[in-house]
Amino acid sequence: MSTTLPGADLEQNERVRAVFEDIRRTRGSDFINAFWRHLALDPALLEATWAEVQRTMVAPSALDPLTKELIYIAVSTANGCGYCVHSHTAAARAKGMTDAQYADLLAVIGLAGKTNHLATALQVPVDPVFDLRQDGGRA
Amino acid sequence: MSTTLPGADLEQNERVRAVFEDIRRTRGSDFINAFWRHLALDPALLEATWAEVQRTMVAPSALDPLTKELIYIAVSTANGCGYCVHSHTAAARAKGMTDAQYADLLAVIGLAGKTNHLATALQVPVDPVFDLRQDGGRA
Amino acid sequence: MSTTLPGADLEQNERVRAVFEDIRRTRGSDFINAFWRHLALDPALLEATWAEVQRTMVAPSALDPLTKELIYIAVSTANGCGYCVHSHTAAARAKGMTDAQYADLLAVIGLAGKTNHLATALQVPVDPVFDLRQDGGRA
Amino acid sequence: MSTTLPGADLEQNERVRAVFEDIRRTRGSDFINAFWRHLALDPALLEATWAEVQRTMVAPSALDPLTKELIYIAVSTANGCGYCVHSHTAAARAKGMTDAQYADLLAVIGLAGKTNHLATALQVPVDPVFDLRQDGGRA
Amino acid sequence: MSTTLPGADLEQNERVRAVFEDIRRTRGSDFINAFWRHLALDPALLEATWAEVQRTMVAPSALDPLTKELIYIAVSTANGCGYCVHSHTAAARAKGMTDAQYADLLAVIGLAGKTNHLATALQVPVDPVFDLRQDGGRA
Amino acid sequence: MSTTLPGADLEQNERVRAVFEDIRRTRGSDFINAFWRHLALDPALLEATWAEVQRTMVAPSALDPLTKELIYIAVSTANGCGYCVHSHTAAARAKGMTDAQYADLLAVIGLAGKTNHLATALQVPVDPVFDLRQDGGRA
Repeated sequence: MSTTLPGADLEQNERVRAVFEDIRRTRGSDFINAFWRHLALDPALLEATWAEVQRTMVAPSALDPLTKELIYIAVSTANGCGYCVHSHTAAARAKGMTDAQYADLLAVIGLAGKTNHLATALQVPVDPVFDLRQDGGRA
Repeated sequence: MSTTLPGADLEQNERVRAVFEDIRRTRGSDFINAFWRHLALDPALLEATWAEVQRTMVAPSALDPLTKELIYIAVSTANGCGYCVHSHTAAARAKGMTDAQYADLLAVIGLAGKTNHLATALQVPVDPVFDLRQDGGRA
Repeated sequence: MSTTLPGADLEQNERVRAVFEDIRRTRGSDFINAFWRHLALDPALLEATWAEVQRTMVAPSALDPLTKELIYIAVSTANGCGYCVHSHTAAARAKGMTDAQYADLLAVIGLAGKTNHLATALQVPVDPVFDLRQDGGRA
Repeated sequence: MSTTLPGADLEQNERVRAVFEDIRRTRGSDFINAFWRHLALDPALLEATWAEVQRTMVAPSALDPLTKELIYIAVSTANGCGYCVHSHTAAARAKGMTDAQYADLLAVIGLAGKTNHLATALQVPVDPVFDLRQDGGRA
Repeated sequence: MSTTLPGADLEQNERVRAVFEDIRRTRGSDFINAFWRHLALDPALLEATWAEVQRTMVAPSALDPLTKELIYIAVSTANGCGYCVHSHTAAARAKGMTDAQYADLLAVIGLAGKTNHLATALQVPVDPVFDLRQDGGRA
Repeated sequence: MSTTLPGADLEQNERVRAVFEDIRRTRGSDFINAFWRHLALDPALLEATWAEVQRTMVAPSALDPLTKELIYIAVSTANGCGYCVHSHTAAARAKGMTDAQYADLLAVIGLAGKTNHLATALQVPVDPVFDLRQDGGRA
């Protein structure tokens, strides 16, 4: 189900083809997933989003690639994005996630879902020691 | 702001004191945060939740403790639980999260927030290759 | 913190006063809470919302009043609306919610938060037996 | 997939038929979408919801019809309602949304998704200048 | 669609079989739904989750079983978990939910969805009378 | 309340000062709000986010500036980001939003919140006519 229908010839657009070829180079595969194909309706948005993915997920940084995919799955789950959960779980496996790590991830996500709800239902006030702005935000 | 007012003498309840002492032993500190103090209104719920935290976050497992806190922050952010974001960010720092790692975490959370929304707005269909149940779930 | 500042003389507007007096009659109290005072910026929206509350929460129906407040707290918690959690928890207490019932409510909300996240992370397919549209929605 | 199965003869109920005919008159088409057909299980709820749609989306007001559909798509996306995203995107196109406007809408929704997450992760305190209740809400 | 593929022989695992048999005994039916079959990828998580469901939903407590299912549907709806909405609506019907009660539930959920959004858009400040921590949370 | 404490001398960092001066030039004001000051903890993230805001919200495009702020408020409301609701409501007023337009916005957001919840509770299947991928996404 989708709100747009990607054309058969997306890569006739120069900008789209450039992004898709960069994705292929980066992934080491010909496959362009549905998210990128749908985003191609606006080449500027496609370019900007791919650039951000490269900057954040591909370039080496302080967190390792697998950890970043686990974070991505966590956010996508809480936001209820089924597409994203599927694609990032596949990416995590491709980056070496073991079954034991996946089980751990699920356990943490489930526990966080629970305590998020409990803390919100109880409207727990933030402990002052956690609040770096002891001025209560008025500064 | 809260929906309950924890009494001054929560630990007069034996079950509550037992949990609080276990928390203190585990954390190596006398501090019991507001979440646990509010949850103490129901000793059974307090016990069960603490047991799950021990099982999931404290006991050694396939993911290291810091990674699990990052996942927790990610879920809490997407769920909009301010208390949880505060307490788990403090926990992550206590477990060694550097400023560079925190910046990375923010970048991934922000990017995931964006692509979750884009994929949902576009109603992107799941690529068959991501769908382990090629029977479309009918089996 | 708010995005509007209710004037001191909200009830000089005839339509607003009519709604506020109806609220007072219904609640048996002079108190008009902040939600209604903020909504008064648009008398039409105030009237329509109060009418819906009367129809849904006040008029006798197939669910008893306390059950409906528990449902309201549950939705408000999952949606992260702190104001709503506060006001509907107070309403539930006013309608007779005991401490034991409140603890039960928290336990169910917490468990649902957890299993919602697990089912979404696992992208569990709906069992055919739950799906009343066995045509998969294509009819 | 659905939790109820609309009967084949929904319009044998007088109240349902009245609403459906009003929808047809308003839309200038015979088509009654699945949302209305499912809501028909309770004629009172169907009537009230349709009345609110007429009041809010159909009657001329300070915002033009297309702008209101864009707002509707935005809320539906953040709430993860796939049905709503589909139906309101179709409605927006019917009200004249161009491809360029759609691309703009996606860009804003994506950016808002990102900054919402960043602001929540950072727990940014509200600047006093944005807070019309300088009494911090205690008045 | 799913991110894992439950094997055909889940119950060859002793711990999984023990849980499934307990579920069958409790439900009075041979049917094990997809949620439990998917969770079986980690026997510890399966055991802990089932134990919590028994403790919270099955054991008699201050709220009756049907009320707890209604709360579960409410949370699942706000969280957008389609699987959960399906399975818990079926469970509610199995526990005696009538059509009139279901219509009521929908009306409350819809109204809560609306007022949650209005209160958040208006950023309504919590009335002091609702705030049991008159110290604004600084204690 | 916040998880970081912006230093007093943020603009000693060249990259931060460059962004802040660009913000001031664009807004025509000296004011740098708390979101940007908190984001300054990572100059790269600050630069990228500001660049995206300029590209999406500042540069002329197919949607007018006020419409884009209304969309932003809508997403921020559904996501429960209080900071964002505050700052973008202020921005919308600065861009000319009238009280009548604001009331309209609230009415649409509230109605969308309601129908999003109803459609999700009913698990309404997408009408084939809305689904541009008549292959059900398998292509």
